[in-house]
Amino acid sequence: MASKWVYRFGAGQSEGNASMRALLGGKGGNLAEMSNLGLPVPPGFTITTEVCAAYYDNARTFPSELEDEITEALQFVSDAVGAEFGSRDKPLLVSVRSGARASMPGMMDTVLNLGLNDETVEGLAERSGDRRFAYDSYRRFIQMYSDVVLGVDHHAFEDILDNFKDEHRLNLDTALSAEHWGEIISRYKQVVEETTDEPFPQDVKAQLRGAIDAVFGSWQSARAITYRLLNDIPDEWGTAVNVQAMVFGNLGETSATGVAFTRNPSTGENALYGEFLVNAQGEDVVAGIRTPQNITEAARIAAGSEAPSLEALMPKAFQELSNMFAKLERHYRDMQDLEFTIQDGKLWMLQTRSGKRTATAALRIAVEMANEGLISRKEALMRIDPNSLDQLLHPTLDPDAARAVIASGLPASPGAASGAVVFESDEAERMKAVGNQVILVRVETSPEDIHGMHAAEGILTTRGGMTSHAAVVARGMGTPCVSGAGSIFVDQAAQQFSIGTTVVKKGDMITVDGSSGQVILGTVPTIKPELSGDFATIMRWADEVRALGIRTNADTPGDAKVAREFGAEGIGLCRTEHMFFDSERIVAVRQMILANDEQGRRAALDKILPMQRADFIELFEIMSGLPVTIRLLDPPLHEFLPNTQEEADEVADLIGADPEAMRARVAELQEFNPMLGHRGCRIAITYPEIAEMQARAIFEAVGEAAARTGEPPIPEIMVPLIATRAEFDLIKDRIDKVAEQVQAESGGKIDYLVGTMIELPRACLTAGEIAAAAEFFSFGTNDLTQTAFGISRDDSARFMGEYTAKGILPIDPFISIDVDGVGELVQIASERGRAARPDIKLGICGEHGGDPASIDFCHKIGLTYVSCSPFRVPIARLAAARAAIAAEVA
Amino acid sequence: MASKWVYRFGAGQSEGNASMRALLGGKGGNLAEMSNLGLPVPPGFTITTEVCAAYYDNARTFPSELEDEITEALQFVSDAVGAEFGSRDKPLLVSVRSGARASMPGMMDTVLNLGLNDETVEGLAERSGDRRFAYDSYRRFIQMYSDVVLGVDHHAFEDILDNFKDEHRLNLDTALSAEHWGEIISRYKQVVEETTDEPFPQDVKAQLRGAIDAVFGSWQSARAITYRLLNDIPDEWGTAVNVQAMVFGNLGETSATGVAFTRNPSTGENALYGEFLVNAQGEDVVAGIRTPQNITEAARIAAGSEAPSLEALMPKAFQELSNMFAKLERHYRDMQDLEFTIQDGKLWMLQTRSGKRTATAALRIAVEMANEGLISRKEALMRIDPNSLDQLLHPTLDPDAARAVIASGLPASPGAASGAVVFESDEAERMKAVGNQVILVRVETSPEDIHGMHAAEGILTTRGGMTSHAAVVARGMGTPCVSGAGSIFVDQAAQQFSIGTTVVKKGDMITVDGSSGQVILGTVPTIKPELSGDFATIMRWADEVRALGIRTNADTPGDAKVAREFGAEGIGLCRTEHMFFDSERIVAVRQMILANDEQGRRAALDKILPMQRADFIELFEIMSGLPVTIRLLDPPLHEFLPNTQEEADEVADLIGADPEAMRARVAELQEFNPMLGHRGCRIAITYPEIAEMQARAIFEAVGEAAARTGEPPIPEIMVPLIATRAEFDLIKDRIDKVAEQVQAESGGKIDYLVGTMIELPRACLTAGEIAAAAEFFSFGTNDLTQTAFGISRDDSARFMGEYTAKGILPIDPFISIDVDGVGELVQIASERGRAARPDIKLGICGEHGGDPASIDFCHKIGLTYVSCSPFRVPIARLAAARAAIAAEVA
Repeated sequence: MASKWVYRFGAGQSEGNASMRALLGGKGGNLAEMSNLGLPVPPGFTITTEVCAAYYDNARTFPSELEDEITEALQFVSDAVGAEFGSRDKPLLVSVRSGARASMPGMMDTVLNLGLNDETVEGLAERSGDRRFAYDSYRRFIQMYSDVVLGVDHHAFEDILDNFKDEHRLNLDTALSAEHWGEIISRYKQVVEETTDEPFPQDVKAQLRGAIDAVFGSWQSARAITYRLLNDIPDEWGTAVNVQAMVFGNLGETSATGVAFTRNPSTGENALYGEFLVNAQGEDVVAGIRTPQNITEAARIAAGSEAPSLEALMPKAFQELSNMFAKLERHYRDMQDLEFTIQDGKLWMLQTRSGKRTATAALRIAVEMANEGLISRKEALMRIDPNSLDQLLHPTLDPDAARAVIASGLPASPGAASGAVVFESDEAERMKAVGNQVILVRVETSPEDIHGMHAAEGILTTRGGMTSHAAVVARGMGTPCVSGAGSIFVDQAAQQFSIGTTVVKKGDMITVDGSSGQVILGTVPTIKPELSGDFATIMRWADEVRALGIRTNADTPGDAKVAREFGAEGIGLCRTEHMFFDSERIVAVRQMILANDEQGRRAALDKILPMQRADFIELFEIMSGLPVTIRLLDPPLHEFLPNTQEEADEVADLIGADPEAMRARVAELQEFNPMLGHRGCRIAITYPEIAEMQARAIFEAVGEAAARTGEPPIPEIMVPLIATRAEFDLIKDRIDKVAEQVQAESGGKIDYLVGTMIELPRACLTAGEIAAAAEFFSFGTNDLTQTAFGISRDDSARFMGEYTAKGILPIDPFISIDVDGVGELVQIASERGRAARPDIKLGICGEHGGDPASIDFCHKIGLTYVSCSPFRVPIARLAAARAAIAAEVA
Repeated sequence: MASKWVYRFGAGQSEGNASMRALLGGKGGNLAEMSNLGLPVPPGFTITTEVCAAYYDNARTFPSELEDEITEALQFVSDAVGAEFGSRDKPLLVSVRSGARASMPGMMDTVLNLGLNDETVEGLAERSGDRRFAYDSYRRFIQMYSDVVLGVDHHAFEDILDNFKDEHRLNLDTALSAEHWGEIISRYKQVVEETTDEPFPQDVKAQLRGAIDAVFGSWQSARAITYRLLNDIPDEWGTAVNVQAMVFGNLGETSATGVAFTRNPSTGENALYGEFLVNAQGEDVVAGIRTPQNITEAARIAAGSEAPSLEALMPKAFQELSNMFAKLERHYRDMQDLEFTIQDGKLWMLQTRSGKRTATAALRIAVEMANEGLISRKEALMRIDPNSLDQLLHPTLDPDAARAVIASGLPASPGAASGAVVFESDEAERMKAVGNQVILVRVETSPEDIHGMHAAEGILTTRGGMTSHAAVVARGMGTPCVSGAGSIFVDQAAQQFSIGTTVVKKGDMITVDGSSGQVILGTVPTIKPELSGDFATIMRWADEVRALGIRTNADTPGDAKVAREFGAEGIGLCRTEHMFFDSERIVAVRQMILANDEQGRRAALDKILPMQRADFIELFEIMSGLPVTIRLLDPPLHEFLPNTQEEADEVADLIGADPEAMRARVAELQEFNPMLGHRGCRIAITYPEIAEMQARAIFEAVGEAAARTGEPPIPEIMVPLIATRAEFDLIKDRIDKVAEQVQAESGGKIDYLVGTMIELPRACLTAGEIAAAAEFFSFGTNDLTQTAFGISRDDSARFMGEYTAKGILPIDPFISIDVDGVGELVQIASERGRAARPDIKLGICGEHGGDPASIDFCHKIGLTYVSCSPFRVPIARLAAARAAIAAEVA
């Protein structure tokens, strides 16, 4: 036999373990692992991800040996639980669940209670001594199986139940008797037969085949595909399928089911945290239909809930649970997310996995586990997704600002956001696409809402707990979420919601505070986050490990200050053109551009010089003691001129220019492809006086800043868009001459570097020549991506979506560096540059400088530093540390 | 002593030879070589090009040892001719001439008769027995030296002479006596002293130092720099300086001076060809001031001249000359361009070098020399500049067309051209820059006119012979030229010329036929050249040698036909978008673009399909038996839509579209950087139905063409602008599906290839992956140059001139491939492509495919073929052969 397709677990013996995640999926591996640890796991078996691959490779058919292996494994399960699949008297019921390598909560299908039919339901009734329970289970099974496997719309079943309750004037499901359910079951079976032209399958083996087929099939459902795209999960991983003996949390008041975390997934507090429902199946907790109870007394008291805790209700089971949780956390060395069921007082573990957590929680858990000695500091760093820090860095609500709180719910995902109310996911996506910020308001969310949740700034639901779909997904996305705000009534048809007499219509602005659970009318001012405590600890640990320097891209004093607070070690890119747009200056800039000759340009530049010098003095002061890289003017000159004729006339009037001349110059400077036009160093070549003015402003500012701070800054002057060594030589020569002049005038010596931005493929290839003259390189990977791909970033929106959706590109290369193409160019340039000048400084200042995957690449090829926007500096610090750790391991 | 700065020649012994061209310059090396061959060369010495380098490296000062070496060499010359430099009784006179590695005719300075002063002139008078000659020589020397060395404007001297002649009522220089010249000399010296504040130098050593300094200095004159730029001569080569004993062609009626070619430089005929003047100095012949006489009787008779030939006038010297010419041609194995002087009956050789020749002459000489056994066929191929063939390929005047011939001159440079009359070089350049074709009309041209001659389509002079400045330069440029059209009177002030009563004003159209010497009023229709005879022979020889295939870029049947006649071996690039602009089709194309959905697009495409199919059938028929590479639609769709709102409304009306929708779509499709936008394969990704239509048109055309010609064509379908393998896979899959459909419909099997244009840096780097799927690569080096450099070709005009002028780029990289950058990308792609698919076809279809230097590169890296515009096919054939020969040698 070439492959083993099925792995058993439970009953104290398993064929797999947690390290076999790729083959068994996360759930299957962990069920086997828990069983190996001696924990009570209902026996079952995992059909491997290789079956999934074979299934799709062979036009959705299964390997021929699979059926026999399943039959044998079913016998193992039957023996373990003392039941028989399809037996009337001792019926074995099973669940059939997906379990992929990476968690994809709610994305794929599940069938429970499989094995029930008109005969076995009677056996179940007899064995459980609860006919109503048996019939309820059967009707749930028919409904779920018909929906998932047979494709019968679930509304049909809901309508039958609603009608039946109306007919019998019954309000609650709990009021229905076994006979009622029996009547409903026959109506269910009727609608299945009408819809599918086949009676509901009574053959339990056929039921099982159908369910396995459906679960494997759900790997390619639209919502699963979307989820994988959003989460970078490869298509070819496939899912495993777990078939497991059913245990029942709905066998009466001594039964329960729940989900829990070994630590608080929202705050990271080291305390068991979770929710449960008495007399319920697991799906009931996650679905958010009933509001669940707290597991611990402490949590119940903190939440001010009156529903008793598990600790109080079932103290023995609670104690057992606590012990198991502690054991699992120690075993896995990470906070665990668990599912359990108590059947008639006996505890069963249904799942364990590393729990998703907020960024705050991730920091706290990592720091505390490292301090507890459970993990090393490096492991702690590897536990935190750098991108998740983004949540912590952005403003929260100003506590002093007035808030019109209209409702409260659960603080399901931290952070605050304001936006216009929308009630549908499609609408959220549409509004976002045209530039609106929206808050998605739903009774509850389902996997079909993923795209709308992604588009929304914040999410508000009126039903469901901290582990409801909305809460789990929002935390994963880092989107603020308030869940279970029960006082809110959503009127979907009227596109409005109300709290008492307050009515909020579609499009009205609200604010949700996912940290407090408040829902606020209108927008609320926000404040900067406090970056101390665990955050500061992790940053310190990261700084001890990382090899890459971290600088920032900053053009303004404000940005520079924020970045320095966030730990930037200098400026890697100061774009001087932004300084030219200031209303005072633009007049002189335009006069310069309109001048007919060098003399006229120099006269205008003389006016700009003192302003430009003042800019640099301020930046040098803020960054005192740190390097500041200043890029010479980069954009084409037409960017500084007015766009329309009316504007041109107005400006001409303002600066005292001839309107005709202005219009002519605007027309003359127009370009077909400005990105590839007269810009970058080409401006310094044709109008060297501009570069000279900038160099003078820099050198004069050095002296002034040194006098003010007592620490002379070291400016690094960066020539943009170099394609050839000769360009660089000509411009460096001009800069050096200005330096000589300023030094002669001031009598002081100025230390400075002249280097270049490497942002063209040709510059990468001829980097050896260029490095012989340039003292540093900074990779401008935005432009390098544009030229390597031949794609204008500004124009790419028309097809980039289709490119990533079709998998032509795994990710937009403007977001994460394209290692194969752009990356090779950067690597070639680095190698050749270092060969020519071994001590050359190599940095990156494209937006990739703040992207963790790109930072990992930068570490691998040995760059000196990365430079990113101020708010990404902490992310870069952590990412750089993780890159260093990953490289040690590799 | 580290270096030897001076090399002697003449008197039967030389320190150098012709192989030392880099050190001694062309002239110096050849003077030494002739001397070594025993030919009568006036003794002299060459100051090497290393001195020139040292001179410029050391702020225009000479090596310290140089003066002593010159003194010793002067003594050698003195001894050899039995005279003494500066001696009154036996004065040695010398010429001081530049001599660079590459010929730069007339570009640098020369001083003759150096060594004359108020004393030695008397000795010269006594020794020559001709006082008038001695004084004439002295005044010539003062004039030349003052102009070249002292910077005194030559007009000052001309004015003195003219005034003197007016005062004495003398018309011709020959009428002036020795005393007259004496008086003029004193006036000359006076103007020198007034202008320079120094008397004219009497110290002959000072004279020599000054002249050497001036000649080395002229290497960096503006006109020399321009010439080097135009002719790709490196700055660092420098010039040598030759100091040589004077011989005199102006010692009376038994003296003469002339220039000659061993074969006819215009037709290539194997017959001695040249001109001379009796009683003249060499400069007089080249300057074109007197119209020279033919050397042979045959030439005199052919020209219908009454001035006696040298053959008739001085039979002994003529015979000697003929023998020397034959010896030199055999020795150098190439047609020689010679200068000689007969001093009092004795023949002296002053220069030999390989002669410039027209393309026609080059072909004939190469073919005949190979047939004579003087050179090999491969050498013959290496003798022809591929670019020069361009002259032969372009139309000549239709012999049947009416011609209003208004004047005749010498057929100085073949080919015919029409254009507007201009009288100044600056004006010629200006008019050319704004898109006009001009004919430059001058009395005579000088090196100051180079830029105007370059701008002109044709040149007409009223003075000067076949070896005049205008004639030599025009032939070098391949520009048609009629010289010495003496019946034309140019009135520069009135900006017109006249022949009798016919007046032609600036801006009037004329035609010059440089093959017949005719000047024609208005424009004349032209016909295609005959490509047989020597041309066909050379092409055959080239085809035997070359490894590269030659294809053509052709979109129309007309282009395809021309290219096939020129020897194209298939189509390397058929741009299908050109087929979409046809007025019948553009309506359907626009409907397609305006369609709201795929269905609407498919409906419009259905209308285009039969037209597109007909295009391909025609191309396949013309290229029957040869491969045809068809590129899928490449430009962004907005190129097919109207530009202005008015046009948009009009078009909307025409195609029955909503004007609002049309305007909206035009606006929607607008791009910031169309070159980097939604184009190339990105169109096929987002609108696969367009690629499918094109593929269907191609496959259906294959069947039809096969039926018509009996030979099924093999289409090579080319996907443009591929950046990733995944793009290619998606599109190839669509193409293959269409092929299956068409094969199923027709029942026949279609052979085809699907490959890609490699025109993005990323594609070059990932060429290994792409080649695993693509069956051929064609390098689109236009776009690859744009992306590698980050330069939009359309926008580069604003700075490219400055880039090449400042030497930042040696040549516009859109003209000749940038080997270091773009070339390395092509090489990387070729290597990786071949590694993945050893038999991959590799071609180039950018405009570099027709550039000889780029073709050489393509051969070196082993491409399969180059593809170029039809008129460059013969050039490419020859260039490919030369590349193969050069590679054998290397």
